[in-house]
Amino acid sequence: MAFPCVDALENRSATLSQARSRSGPEPSYTSGATESFHCRDPLLLDWGGILPEFTVAYETWGKLNSDKSNAILLHTGLSASSHAHSTEANPQPGWWEKFIGPGAPLDTDKYHVICTNVIGGCHGSTGPSSTDPGNGERYATRFPVVTLQDMVRAQFRLLHQLGVEKLHASVGSSMGGMQSLAAGVMFPSRVRRVVSVSGCARSHPYSIAMRHTQRQVLMMDPNWNRGFYYDGGVPPHAGMKLAREIATVTYRSGPEWEQRFGRRRADPAKPPALCPDFLVETYLDHAGEKWCLNHDPNSLLYVSKAMDLFDLGRENQLATLSRRSAREQDLASASSASSTTAAAAAAAAASAGCGLTLPQTPYEEQPDPQVDEPQPDPTVEASSRPPEDLVQGLAALRDTPTLVMGVASDILLPARQQREIAEALRLAGNRGVTHVELSEEMSLFGHDTFLLDLKHIGGNIKMFLD
Amino acid sequence: MAFPCVDALENRSATLSQARSRSGPEPSYTSGATESFHCRDPLLLDWGGILPEFTVAYETWGKLNSDKSNAILLHTGLSASSHAHSTEANPQPGWWEKFIGPGAPLDTDKYHVICTNVIGGCHGSTGPSSTDPGNGERYATRFPVVTLQDMVRAQFRLLHQLGVEKLHASVGSSMGGMQSLAAGVMFPSRVRRVVSVSGCARSHPYSIAMRHTQRQVLMMDPNWNRGFYYDGGVPPHAGMKLAREIATVTYRSGPEWEQRFGRRRADPAKPPALCPDFLVETYLDHAGEKWCLNHDPNSLLYVSKAMDLFDLGRENQLATLSRRSAREQDLASASSASSTTAAAAAAAAASAGCGLTLPQTPYEEQPDPQVDEPQPDPTVEASSRPPEDLVQGLAALRDTPTLVMGVASDILLPARQQREIAEALRLAGNRGVTHVELSEEMSLFGHDTFLLDLKHIGGNIKMFLD
Repeated sequence: MAFPCVDALENRSATLSQARSRSGPEPSYTSGATESFHCRDPLLLDWGGILPEFTVAYETWGKLNSDKSNAILLHTGLSASSHAHSTEANPQPGWWEKFIGPGAPLDTDKYHVICTNVIGGCHGSTGPSSTDPGNGERYATRFPVVTLQDMVRAQFRLLHQLGVEKLHASVGSSMGGMQSLAAGVMFPSRVRRVVSVSGCARSHPYSIAMRHTQRQVLMMDPNWNRGFYYDGGVPPHAGMKLAREIATVTYRSGPEWEQRFGRRRADPAKPPALCPDFLVETYLDHAGEKWCLNHDPNSLLYVSKAMDLFDLGRENQLATLSRRSAREQDLASASSASSTTAAAAAAAAASAGCGLTLPQTPYEEQPDPQVDEPQPDPTVEASSRPPEDLVQGLAALRDTPTLVMGVASDILLPARQQREIAEALRLAGNRGVTHVELSEEMSLFGHDTFLLDLKHIGGNIKMFLD
Repeated sequence: MAFPCVDALENRSATLSQARSRSGPEPSYTSGATESFHCRDPLLLDWGGILPEFTVAYETWGKLNSDKSNAILLHTGLSASSHAHSTEANPQPGWWEKFIGPGAPLDTDKYHVICTNVIGGCHGSTGPSSTDPGNGERYATRFPVVTLQDMVRAQFRLLHQLGVEKLHASVGSSMGGMQSLAAGVMFPSRVRRVVSVSGCARSHPYSIAMRHTQRQVLMMDPNWNRGFYYDGGVPPHAGMKLAREIATVTYRSGPEWEQRFGRRRADPAKPPALCPDFLVETYLDHAGEKWCLNHDPNSLLYVSKAMDLFDLGRENQLATLSRRSAREQDLASASSASSTTAAAAAAAAASAGCGLTLPQTPYEEQPDPQVDEPQPDPTVEASSRPPEDLVQGLAALRDTPTLVMGVASDILLPARQQREIAEALRLAGNRGVTHVELSEEMSLFGHDTFLLDLKHIGGNIKMFLD
């Protein structure tokens, strides 16, 4: 039996090995020109790590008005760059090309749209493939754990630099929909309205499980080498390819594939094979091929992990705040003991010179205890009402008009998770919640709907923003 | 950063490598005593391969009555052995322990229950890890492609040997639910009733995609070695572990994991890690660990592929029949040219001495053409009505009472696929279709419900059989 899919992986390893030994370090993953904001003030991260300095790659569309009140911060999905729309410097179509422009949902006749590559990413912002200023080497898996809130913190440093003190809106889909909520929770006074599409307020175990398998398949590739494949090594292209294939299974829906691929085989004249054989398999194979060398494997691991860690519940917010405070105190005392050590630069994170910091205490509101009311059946409670911890965690958004959208055919971030956001916001006292759920009749495109459905996704965003 | 999950894989490879070099060939995957039927007459397979002889491992419970009319053939899921229930020879609990026994859904006071390991499997029946009688070596990936129908064909050879000419019922869940339908379609006069739980009448692209990723991760493991890891090689335990983890993601449901694991971390005192960290990840890791050395990797590939190839549509049945006829003619002419060659034994497949064979032409029934009726909207047609090809393909079951069960929380073989079976059977003229769908309120256990829900799954089977 022939195994062309295995042959292909082995051949690529051999080719890459030869190419690397001839030409030295691999190229950057950045695919086009962007603006770049370099912040020399350290960024203290939620889990205690520090970036002594960092870069945020970004792009903008539309004009910032004179009072700087028309800015929209657009958050990306897991793997996207800041290139949401074509620019003069990079005329390639962006990942939300039709959603941005004159008269489009993000209307550049009215708004100044800003999109960044996230911290931890590989498209121009500081991430695992960046050079650690401390030793001049690539971070690799010495890069610190980051959270979606850390990414938002870095974005708000950029906004400060641009003179944008208050956003017209924070907008995002998928991971961006999670960040968009986080931005509103972290900086309620600086975000006028929030749009969160196909996101969640806390990562659920099923999504964690799906991402777990992607990380594991990547880490299982011997070429991953515990993250040290830069500078001449062969990158874990086989693991990346397969991780992307697994991810792709979660991006659409069964009924959509039923219509598109059915049971058609790629070449019905050939006998069945263990390598890609049915049309849907060649589609997955192709999706993996397109991606396997165009994204930094370590970035995938770190950003995927950041998604798992996402939880806007109050308990997690308080635990994070307590961890950050303790870390800041450590750094401050280290700094007073020796102002010339590396800790000194790190300690400056406590004051975070070039940007905004979180308030010392988060927004807190204790609902009235309702002990006199009959206790509901805990089983019913669990399935129909968001946990009180989440309701309290979203209280900071009480006065922020919020559009929450979900798609019934989404497998990765199912519609019940967006219903949970909307319900938790309402229970937190928010009277400006708009919740839209696209039925299976409206979209079979599952999680990917936000990239494709200009009419329903775009139309509702436009109505909400204008 | 530490990577204990990667260390563990490397350590196991090293340990296995040492153990194999000391002790020679690996142990058999068979875990307990079974009955064994060895058929010396060749089995011609749907895709043209031939097993010159083969073994079917099986176990039975309850007594066969004097007129041999009370036998139930129980089909297994993808990876299960014939050990559905404990026996005297093997007292370990079986995979359906509570569903079989006196007064149980498969009532051994009334019925004689027979369960086999499938052809292509690794628990005693002939599969890729068996020795090829042609050369005395393990088949490995020289094993021919098999279909679920081939597995059923081998099972009916066993039934013939046991003197069972007509089954009281064919029963199965998951892959077994697919085989159970196939048995009824292939041998309508020998199967009195059919039970198909969480199965389908044709594999859908989403299920193919899920299995594709499992096969790919296994084939990507360098230790797989294109299937030749027997006799001293280290088996692809890392690929098997991860394939099982991916499979496990599809066996339950998001809401069930929400209740069971939530967002709990395995050790909240530790900082986040890229290796298993959340409780749901350690659960997946454990599921993979338990399995990675207890199942033959090549068997997983072949049986998984057989599921992809499954299609009871009429077109596929006709194409298979035509392929088989052509192959039988080839073999017959080769046989007449040289009766002493290996082809001679193969040619005997045409007459299939020790068992039953398919009729020369399948059950055919042409529905009345309805050209005068208005044509429905093809879009609506695609989503709500089974394809005519499938209706015709199931026509052989028209007079067979059939119980079709599905579970709303099933991701792997979603409830719409069982609705498709029931609807296609009804359109084919079957008036004895019982269709039961368990709502999310009844079960959140997804695809695994058939293993767990004695009340609803077991209860409905009992009512239908008795």
